[in-house]
Amino acid sequence: MDALEAINTRRSIRKYTDQPVTDETVAKMLNAAMMAPSAGNQQPWHFVVIRDRKILDEIPTVHPYSSMLASAPLAILVCGDLKLQKNEGYWIQDCSAATQNLLLAAHALGLGAVWLGVFPLGERVVGLTRITELPEHVLPLALIAIGYPAEEKPQPERYDISRIHHDTW
Amino acid sequence: MDALEAINTRRSIRKYTDQPVTDETVAKMLNAAMMAPSAGNQQPWHFVVIRDRKILDEIPTVHPYSSMLASAPLAILVCGDLKLQKNEGYWIQDCSAATQNLLLAAHALGLGAVWLGVFPLGERVVGLTRITELPEHVLPLALIAIGYPAEEKPQPERYDISRIHHDTW
Repeated sequence: MDALEAINTRRSIRKYTDQPVTDETVAKMLNAAMMAPSAGNQQPWHFVVIRDRKILDEIPTVHPYSSMLASAPLAILVCGDLKLQKNEGYWIQDCSAATQNLLLAAHALGLGAVWLGVFPLGERVVGLTRITELPEHVLPLALIAIGYPAEEKPQPERYDISRIHHDTW
Repeated sequence: MDALEAINTRRSIRKYTDQPVTDETVAKMLNAAMMAPSAGNQQPWHFVVIRDRKILDEIPTVHPYSSMLASAPLAILVCGDLKLQKNEGYWIQDCSAATQNLLLAAHALGLGAVWLGVFPLGERVVGLTRITELPEHVLPLALIAIGYPAEEKPQPERYDISRIHHDTW
């Protein structure tokens, strides 16, 4: 799929078929995530690939918008390692760029995915840290539900010239 | 350019040719940025397209790593509008996803670009807010220097299985 087409047609997909997602496909998505730029090239990310049905079913008890996990074959928790960042706060931006790369790669590979916000909301951060047994220096940023799409969505129109300024505001 | 190829071959480009970047090409990059997902689809972003040579030359007085702007035909300041976010803190992730889309679109269009971190470093935030005359409810997240590339960089190897965990840490 063409790069601009992937960017422009990617949508949040919350319904999935039964088709399994191979480890090879997961590796391609994770590679794409790790190709993101990061402050000082610190690459402060970790990824928890969740396929365990028991864990997937427990997540909605700590995340109110994750009911689609019931039909998702897997989810990937994108985490930031505070020990790996040089400048405070940049891990959020680095891991967000990695998350966006992962979403685009999923779409380009024919999968559907949705970004579920976690950090900085306390209940979600604490709950996912417990469920996935993260160490203290690692924070969960975002959870991505992934599967082959069982819904289609049209390309949206989001271009808004009122958000564009020239030289100064 | 193929989507996965764009993701995997994008690099930070800091040297640019004299070739001008058309408004049409800038619009394609901004459209890509605005196609990013955002929390609650709030799209809390603004973009300041800076072509004014005087402004480009002033930025290095407030941002220590922006000397490449001397040869860049333009830069885009990605900003977050605090009035447009529902959940506190999500604007950073939303605008980071938009920034990553913009970088990928630039690369796919044959341009080179580099993400210069701004937020949350005080001097850079205050300086760029002053120089681009941002209102109080808008914060500069990242500055992207853009131009046709005058340097080539090989595809890096960043895949690191030690960053991948299964089901739990």
